[in-house]
Amino acid sequence: MVLSNRPDNARPFLTWQRITDWAQEHYRSRTFSKDERIPTRSGLLYLVERGAIRLVGAAHTPPGSRAELPPDLMLEDEPEVTTGALAMAGYEEAFLGFVGAGQPFEIVAQSPFNLQSFAHVDQTTVIWLYWNDLDNWPHFRREVLDAFRYQHQRKLLWLSTLGQRRTIDRLFGFLTLLIEEFGEPCESGYYLPWTLTHAQIGSAIGSTRVTVTRLMGKLRQRKLIHIHRDGLIAIPAHHPAAQQA
Amino acid sequence: MVLSNRPDNARPFLTWQRITDWAQEHYRSRTFSKDERIPTRSGLLYLVERGAIRLVGAAHTPPGSRAELPPDLMLEDEPEVTTGALAMAGYEEAFLGFVGAGQPFEIVAQSPFNLQSFAHVDQTTVIWLYWNDLDNWPHFRREVLDAFRYQHQRKLLWLSTLGQRRTIDRLFGFLTLLIEEFGEPCESGYYLPWTLTHAQIGSAIGSTRVTVTRLMGKLRQRKLIHIHRDGLIAIPAHHPAAQQA
Repeated sequence: MVLSNRPDNARPFLTWQRITDWAQEHYRSRTFSKDERIPTRSGLLYLVERGAIRLVGAAHTPPGSRAELPPDLMLEDEPEVTTGALAMAGYEEAFLGFVGAGQPFEIVAQSPFNLQSFAHVDQTTVIWLYWNDLDNWPHFRREVLDAFRYQHQRKLLWLSTLGQRRTIDRLFGFLTLLIEEFGEPCESGYYLPWTLTHAQIGSAIGSTRVTVTRLMGKLRQRKLIHIHRDGLIAIPAHHPAAQQA
Repeated sequence: MVLSNRPDNARPFLTWQRITDWAQEHYRSRTFSKDERIPTRSGLLYLVERGAIRLVGAAHTPPGSRAELPPDLMLEDEPEVTTGALAMAGYEEAFLGFVGAGQPFEIVAQSPFNLQSFAHVDQTTVIWLYWNDLDNWPHFRREVLDAFRYQHQRKLLWLSTLGQRRTIDRLFGFLTLLIEEFGEPCESGYYLPWTLTHAQIGSAIGSTRVTVTRLMGKLRQRKLIHIHRDGLIAIPAHHPAAQQA
């Protein structure tokens, strides 16, 4: 079964109630609307108390790479133009994953890529701490660091699937990993409890909205994925990938 | 300057000498030849004492995705056949990065992807520990966990570049990130101190050896990369990407 090996440390916060109380008292908690950007600073630690956040990376294509390339290179691969303010300004945004309730995240700004976080659903509440604040809760600090270990391993799996040459393999691997990590059971299998646009999926797997729409159709025809309700993506319980375990 | 923001925790091991002595005494140290596979077990912690290891992910394409797809899907994207035993056995290997001397790594096996590690250079020495062994060195444990935090952030940047649609952007971003993290200074800029084949690069960015060779030629023509010596990849010191910082 796909979800059977989800480790216990996916929700690692035994002292969660104490932390949330502390955050309330110290005005270190804020609730965001869907798609609202979460202001972050390097060196701070963030905890998702409720809802989910979406990590996004913006690659600023350096001059000389894109802008100064000869026309034949400009039109290489998929020349399709994406929409969105950042894409138009010379940036290309990439969806880097979710951080769900009970999970920590941090954003360390580094060139030539910028990492950002957005509330993925309405009523997403985020707590922030200095790492020093955790001196009071050494056990909790270790749980946070273990959660980052776990997230790191998941990203290695994600990179494994993005190394595949065929876009449909990257797409299918990407959806499988997301649903393996965040999926909720339903009568027909497991579904991702949050919407994800085809443009967002494309931005994660190095493809375009149009190509993702086409390949999602093919995966649905082959019964490898289906739509649960309200457009939520699901995979069957007796999924072929599950038999690899 | 590209390398200026390399954090201090890139070589985090203040108690390094004590650990290596301990590993020697307890027969927890072994030296590997180039490309030798490093046997790993889930739940153990590994430290690179000398040399460098290469992380590789093997995606086992599930039945129903590749094997059972109709012929028109089989030929989609780049139909080129790769060489290598795993590729022939229905696996597709992806290069997931290096772990250099002084750095920790761990391998947590999870379907449908397998993570593996190989000595990337001759005379690579690896130490292994149980996490419990670190109870004697709490400060060291924290440094290891901080190193994983750092590696996780690097992988988010890596995912940012792999989300780009054009293969040449993914290639250039990938090389920039690797040299930013592992580069050594030379008279002409910074170079990656280890060889990396075009097939390995292709396996990281979702492309093929042939395409990588072609696009590397274009990046060289544009002076965005050059070859340092013995085929080592270098970027100029006054690299356009460095001015984004």
